[in-house]
Amino acid sequence: MTKAPSGGRWRVAVLGATGAVGQRLIQLLENHPWFEVSAVAASERSAGKLYSDAARWLLETRIPASVASMRVLPCASNLEADLALSGLDARVAGGIEHSLAEAGIPVISNARNHRMEPDVPLLVPEINAAHAEALTVQRSRRGWKSGFLVTNPNCSTVGLVLPLAALSARFTVKRVSVSTMQAISGAGYPGVASLDILGNVIPHIAGEEEKMETETRKILGRLGPDGFEPSKCTVSAQCHRVPVQDGHLLAVSTDLEGSPSVDAVRDAFASYRSSIEDLELPSHPKPVIILRDEPDRPQPRLDAMAGGGMAVTVGRVRPCPILGIKFNVLVHNTIRGAAGAAILNAEFLVAKGHVQAR
Amino acid sequence: MTKAPSGGRWRVAVLGATGAVGQRLIQLLENHPWFEVSAVAASERSAGKLYSDAARWLLETRIPASVASMRVLPCASNLEADLALSGLDARVAGGIEHSLAEAGIPVISNARNHRMEPDVPLLVPEINAAHAEALTVQRSRRGWKSGFLVTNPNCSTVGLVLPLAALSARFTVKRVSVSTMQAISGAGYPGVASLDILGNVIPHIAGEEEKMETETRKILGRLGPDGFEPSKCTVSAQCHRVPVQDGHLLAVSTDLEGSPSVDAVRDAFASYRSSIEDLELPSHPKPVIILRDEPDRPQPRLDAMAGGGMAVTVGRVRPCPILGIKFNVLVHNTIRGAAGAAILNAEFLVAKGHVQAR
Amino acid sequence: MTKAPSGGRWRVAVLGATGAVGQRLIQLLENHPWFEVSAVAASERSAGKLYSDAARWLLETRIPASVASMRVLPCASNLEADLALSGLDARVAGGIEHSLAEAGIPVISNARNHRMEPDVPLLVPEINAAHAEALTVQRSRRGWKSGFLVTNPNCSTVGLVLPLAALSARFTVKRVSVSTMQAISGAGYPGVASLDILGNVIPHIAGEEEKMETETRKILGRLGPDGFEPSKCTVSAQCHRVPVQDGHLLAVSTDLEGSPSVDAVRDAFASYRSSIEDLELPSHPKPVIILRDEPDRPQPRLDAMAGGGMAVTVGRVRPCPILGIKFNVLVHNTIRGAAGAAILNAEFLVAKGHVQAR
Amino acid sequence: MTKAPSGGRWRVAVLGATGAVGQRLIQLLENHPWFEVSAVAASERSAGKLYSDAARWLLETRIPASVASMRVLPCASNLEADLALSGLDARVAGGIEHSLAEAGIPVISNARNHRMEPDVPLLVPEINAAHAEALTVQRSRRGWKSGFLVTNPNCSTVGLVLPLAALSARFTVKRVSVSTMQAISGAGYPGVASLDILGNVIPHIAGEEEKMETETRKILGRLGPDGFEPSKCTVSAQCHRVPVQDGHLLAVSTDLEGSPSVDAVRDAFASYRSSIEDLELPSHPKPVIILRDEPDRPQPRLDAMAGGGMAVTVGRVRPCPILGIKFNVLVHNTIRGAAGAAILNAEFLVAKGHVQAR
Repeated sequence: MTKAPSGGRWRVAVLGATGAVGQRLIQLLENHPWFEVSAVAASERSAGKLYSDAARWLLETRIPASVASMRVLPCASNLEADLALSGLDARVAGGIEHSLAEAGIPVISNARNHRMEPDVPLLVPEINAAHAEALTVQRSRRGWKSGFLVTNPNCSTVGLVLPLAALSARFTVKRVSVSTMQAISGAGYPGVASLDILGNVIPHIAGEEEKMETETRKILGRLGPDGFEPSKCTVSAQCHRVPVQDGHLLAVSTDLEGSPSVDAVRDAFASYRSSIEDLELPSHPKPVIILRDEPDRPQPRLDAMAGGGMAVTVGRVRPCPILGIKFNVLVHNTIRGAAGAAILNAEFLVAKGHVQAR
Repeated sequence: MTKAPSGGRWRVAVLGATGAVGQRLIQLLENHPWFEVSAVAASERSAGKLYSDAARWLLETRIPASVASMRVLPCASNLEADLALSGLDARVAGGIEHSLAEAGIPVISNARNHRMEPDVPLLVPEINAAHAEALTVQRSRRGWKSGFLVTNPNCSTVGLVLPLAALSARFTVKRVSVSTMQAISGAGYPGVASLDILGNVIPHIAGEEEKMETETRKILGRLGPDGFEPSKCTVSAQCHRVPVQDGHLLAVSTDLEGSPSVDAVRDAFASYRSSIEDLELPSHPKPVIILRDEPDRPQPRLDAMAGGGMAVTVGRVRPCPILGIKFNVLVHNTIRGAAGAAILNAEFLVAKGHVQAR
Repeated sequence: MTKAPSGGRWRVAVLGATGAVGQRLIQLLENHPWFEVSAVAASERSAGKLYSDAARWLLETRIPASVASMRVLPCASNLEADLALSGLDARVAGGIEHSLAEAGIPVISNARNHRMEPDVPLLVPEINAAHAEALTVQRSRRGWKSGFLVTNPNCSTVGLVLPLAALSARFTVKRVSVSTMQAISGAGYPGVASLDILGNVIPHIAGEEEKMETETRKILGRLGPDGFEPSKCTVSAQCHRVPVQDGHLLAVSTDLEGSPSVDAVRDAFASYRSSIEDLELPSHPKPVIILRDEPDRPQPRLDAMAGGGMAVTVGRVRPCPILGIKFNVLVHNTIRGAAGAAILNAEFLVAKGHVQAR
Repeated sequence: MTKAPSGGRWRVAVLGATGAVGQRLIQLLENHPWFEVSAVAASERSAGKLYSDAARWLLETRIPASVASMRVLPCASNLEADLALSGLDARVAGGIEHSLAEAGIPVISNARNHRMEPDVPLLVPEINAAHAEALTVQRSRRGWKSGFLVTNPNCSTVGLVLPLAALSARFTVKRVSVSTMQAISGAGYPGVASLDILGNVIPHIAGEEEKMETETRKILGRLGPDGFEPSKCTVSAQCHRVPVQDGHLLAVSTDLEGSPSVDAVRDAFASYRSSIEDLELPSHPKPVIILRDEPDRPQPRLDAMAGGGMAVTVGRVRPCPILGIKFNVLVHNTIRGAAGAAILNAEFLVAKGHVQAR
């Protein structure tokens, strides 16, 4: 499969490049076999500055040298790129992403703005690769040629849908109740004030429960002739912020048709294989789901980076007296839950021929 | 009501006095209107030392001067006391508490060992004051005269049963699912290693989920002619340790007969009055349940000390798409969940005439 | 001594009432024997709102009911008050405080703006009560009648100057080197981003080292005929932010004339008596300096609230191979280091007759 | 240079393999180009178990598969290895290490027991490579043939001596005062109780200040005809534990002969080249010292892993009004400060021909 336009690498513009998600995108794209960062774009306030001056870099690794010396550009449609990855803040993402897609640039976004639109795939390629087919409808309805909009889910949603997909491969998931313990990096920078979270838990993240409840059903649903048909699964979410840097931990209980045994559920996790494994996408982890047997795993500190931050770790599978099965899941919220998810989507869309060199 | 034997105060022996719960008992008993610490007892290793030398004091307040200069005694039946409050570790509490009760000392314990015994009250006096009547059976069956055993629940259980009692006053609670985020002080000292919990969450606390599921049903049950009849409520618990010092936060969802509205449930919390309010027990908070309206409360740091640490704070009452109603609760785990609970039980049992001066 | 104008209490306006220091002022003034909050003033953005709506309350205690229902006023000179306590942010404090003082209101401020002005006392009344005499010069030079400006030091400076004052009572302090570990509450709200400080230390607090080095010398200096003469003591500070909520810990080493022994230094701390002890000011702690013998004290969590947060705790006094003596100090940064310091200053100035009823 | 006995890799026994330092050794030796773990040895309690069962693994990476399936052996002299790396606890390290060395095994230890012995190198090869020559004396005096003892410094000492070595290359270091903020991983596992350190600072680490003061002088000293001659530099240390996982931060002030300018000092750091750079040892970082210009660096979270955890990061170089120059340093305490230091020593000793295949 030809991955790049001319033997080289695809040119990627990073939108919202100075923010927390933008930084992760830049970090993960360093040495990427298919992609190279061709432009970094951000708000007017940053535009014109050197990237190394504009970004308050938050990651343990250094700013990649090639990016450090780039000038930050405004998020305009003349960006030189074959595709754009967006880590824009939701306050501005909606309009910018739309206008870039309209101008012909494929936009693969982590922002929430377009996720629930009826012709925009909310894509987790291991789960709903077929949803990408909605791009045909999207382009035709909107009159777009080369541009498009594809989104990935909210960071906590990803942690829920991947194990649910493994269960759905064997069973019908009827109901799922989840209580989250979410890391501070999920709120961006400056995000959560230290006075609010140090030695504390905050039982509220604005909009998060709604996102988990609605996005999950769209992702697990199917693309029918009339568009996305959400899954009939009922979802209830309770979201909490905890003083952890990276890694959302979920406590899940679920009602599966036919009340399978704990062993059957464990086997569903352990033997889960992603339908896109054969594409050998660079950011696709093997396995997607790591099942741990220890009584006290997964833990954010120990398991967030499993599979390079792209796998989710499941543990403590056990009976639930109410819904049938309960377990814990851990997901790296800024890799699998944001930047890595967008990159995986980009890899998938490139591999499937949805992106053309410009 | 005469509170003390002779115009003075009741003499209280603190068992396990050097441990984390023992320290809280001593702190809370300082300046208590009814009780005075007459003896501090601990393991053989500490016995004979000055209390101030034997205890690695963990609390922000100073050791009460009268206790600091006491000699630590072994946990033997010759303690000079009208009653004993036990903060003993479960590894030793069973035998010691039994032998003291047998020797005539009323033992009011925070340890888990005797909680589920068929003639031992698992007492939360606001909820199941009538369970204290089991002491008649206990004494008669065991041939005890003045001694007895009464226990309080596990720290996370208390946070669950108090709001459930408020709901039970209006509705029938059929099912309750709870996910906990528990403070490190619940594990005693040295307890949780900092390398395990700093910036992390541990999805496992040994035995905790079982305790929440069984103790809740005993507490909410009734004392019948054949002993304790557990509530028919189904309970499912998922327990997690978080890097918080004091205060267990619970995410609860519950199925109430008749599916009452959120407003009806809020009203049940707001108007809840404890049946023992008229006893004016010194450690009884008013109100027992504090209902908060803010979208981001309760929080451990801000709400743990509500009602002097003896009230529980409920917030975020909202619909649950699966069970009907969900909400958060916060309980101070070492006050209402341990030392304060034992003291309240002692106050109740004294007020009800179950304790005699020795 | 008549403390209040007419048998009642002095009316205090709190400036910057919605901020972190303003909240502490309001908390500490609840039930104050001499003072009552008569007005809460803040920025235009808050003005007109109920205080309970305008303030994001950060403290464990509830908003005092009488304040919760007050309307927030702009920081204008028509505030009804006998004096004003200022917790204003330094970005606006300079002009506002000056104009209020000019309009006749005694302003006792925690802000840094006026601290180093040649006719403004930087007052720690235990140490430099005589500096208040500069008010005569201040009023005469500025043509002010009833208004004046008095400041208290930076939060970390207070922790340094109190033990140095105890040493200065016996010895000449020639040089002092200090490395600080400062709590996040010192940065106000929202202040330090959690992503910056969770599990981390930041070796920089803007302007802090300079403040410690210059303020210390002014406080320890004397008021001469030509104004404040700074102490000749050389001060070197290195300031760090640590993930602690309240309580700045200082590691100090000092060069004392005559190289006194550790015992002599310990005795200087243990026997230190404030020169204003006889005034019996409500916020004045007894003792001002608490000397601890344990090898691992003081600690922020255990010692910040010593003396109601108004005492400083000194420990680990030992020889320094370079400067002679080293020790640790702990100071509660938002009580003794900010709000409590301003209130103590107000008490002192009232007791000394510098404030008149208006 | 032939690195290994027979074209293969040197066989390394890890002593104290289940502890915190032992785990780091195993982690860092995975895929090492010169070394392979041939045996894991620990206390009698662990001996006989599978390593994966015996160790409570604390690191984010997985246990290397080849080690996970090894049987843990007792620390006896029949270990099959060309050399031994010791992460033993100081309570047992002294005797075990001595007996293994006596039995012919080169022992390269992180434990403190033998560090200050007059014929044992306290080796930081960038600084005092010549100290390894003491092995000739050691073997001759003790009658040892192939075995020997070499130690690396305490974790906080390494962070101090590397920048001091850079300064010593240009200037004479007369006095150095250091205040440390040390990570919890430095205390091993279970180590520091979370109740002691969460949201707190502990101003005491047993023996640490003494170690920094004495080890620094030995390391910076020279090997003369009569043995090690400590540096004349005076060192004063104040040590504190902070709630950070990895990375000791040091606040240093130093008196340099001739009072060089800040620029000269910065240049000394920036241009420092290790004398053993040409050996191209696998664990030797380039550069050894990273000089940062930002006002708020180094920070533990961002800089601990610099140079793979083997470099130290220096920042905030500025004038000190007392000693002349002050700056901050960050060192990864379990890599450069423990396991990595021992491995670097092993590499150096192998490269220099001190180890023979057995």
